[in-house]
Amino acid sequence: MRVVAKTEDAHLVERLLESAEVYQGSFLRVLKDRVSLPDGGTATREFIRHPGAVMVVPMLPDGRLLMERQYRYPMGRVMLEFPAGKLDAGEDPLSCGQRELAEETGYSAAEWAYAGVLHNAIAYSDEGIHIYFARGLTRGAQALDAGEFLEVVTRTPEELDQLAASGELTDAKTLIGLLWLQRWQQGAWPLSWQAA
Amino acid sequence: MRVVAKTEDAHLVERLLESAEVYQGSFLRVLKDRVSLPDGGTATREFIRHPGAVMVVPMLPDGRLLMERQYRYPMGRVMLEFPAGKLDAGEDPLSCGQRELAEETGYSAAEWAYAGVLHNAIAYSDEGIHIYFARGLTRGAQALDAGEFLEVVTRTPEELDQLAASGELTDAKTLIGLLWLQRWQQGAWPLSWQAA
Repeated sequence: MRVVAKTEDAHLVERLLESAEVYQGSFLRVLKDRVSLPDGGTATREFIRHPGAVMVVPMLPDGRLLMERQYRYPMGRVMLEFPAGKLDAGEDPLSCGQRELAEETGYSAAEWAYAGVLHNAIAYSDEGIHIYFARGLTRGAQALDAGEFLEVVTRTPEELDQLAASGELTDAKTLIGLLWLQRWQQGAWPLSWQAA
Repeated sequence: MRVVAKTEDAHLVERLLESAEVYQGSFLRVLKDRVSLPDGGTATREFIRHPGAVMVVPMLPDGRLLMERQYRYPMGRVMLEFPAGKLDAGEDPLSCGQRELAEETGYSAAEWAYAGVLHNAIAYSDEGIHIYFARGLTRGAQALDAGEFLEVVTRTPEELDQLAASGELTDAKTLIGLLWLQRWQQGAWPLSWQAA
């Protein structure tokens, strides 16, 4: 998502001189670009090109949140998270959220609301994670990808708040889901619900 | 930070079989590990080894927050953020926060409080960002790294809240700084202040 910079930001903007793909793995793609700096100098910028992702904050009728416990290999431990997954090529974010929620938890939702996007590693990745809320949940069957293992759990908003305060909940996207949930429940940040 | 998994999580845990460094650039280091899965199968896990980072939420006497506008090349635009930077080898997080605040903004702080840590890309990075609050700010001179260009700005908590709701503030660590700030100001999440 490249946006034309405002003219008044010329003292900050870096411009592409030359781009090279330096690593293409099974999952990660790394680019190393040579850029011109605002003072006329040059530098290299190394970063990941990511297709983007979607997170869903699924709310059960009793107010509990549908979540996942999943072993995150880079972290070396099980993490508590809202359901999320990468965008497939050409997939729109809402379809991705509906697909990931169904595959990972087995649930589908009658109503969806788009909250916003977060950028989780702006120093070295262009990843954006779209945030959706879902309610009116109906249970079906999980359909996990090969090599995917996770446990579906529920937590109340109050439990999540306590887990965040105590340092047990540390996943960034999930903390931002909690921020959105609290601000929405406080009447401060609006959500516009639509039928699935 | 590898933690021994609980025995009851054996249905989720993946174990290292073989590790390979597949890319080592000027900034990014990528590992590709072969792992055993809970069902006895194998898979590869590709991820970034990161030294970790520190973010500072600096509060001015009038309640405004000291922030930065910085061009983030992977995003192709200027982003609004709390001051942050990578840990140097062997550096403790508080020293890193004090160093980054001084280098990037020129300010030093009389009091510091540790809030917690966030993990911003658990699918493909082991990065953790430690969150500190700082107050009792005194202005000095910036000392930016070569090739670093940024603008120091201030925003009120209310302005940040509005920028987040409207989708203009999307940096994950900064949104989580806002969550901590709001919960602390609401009296829900404690901060323990210490003299610098």
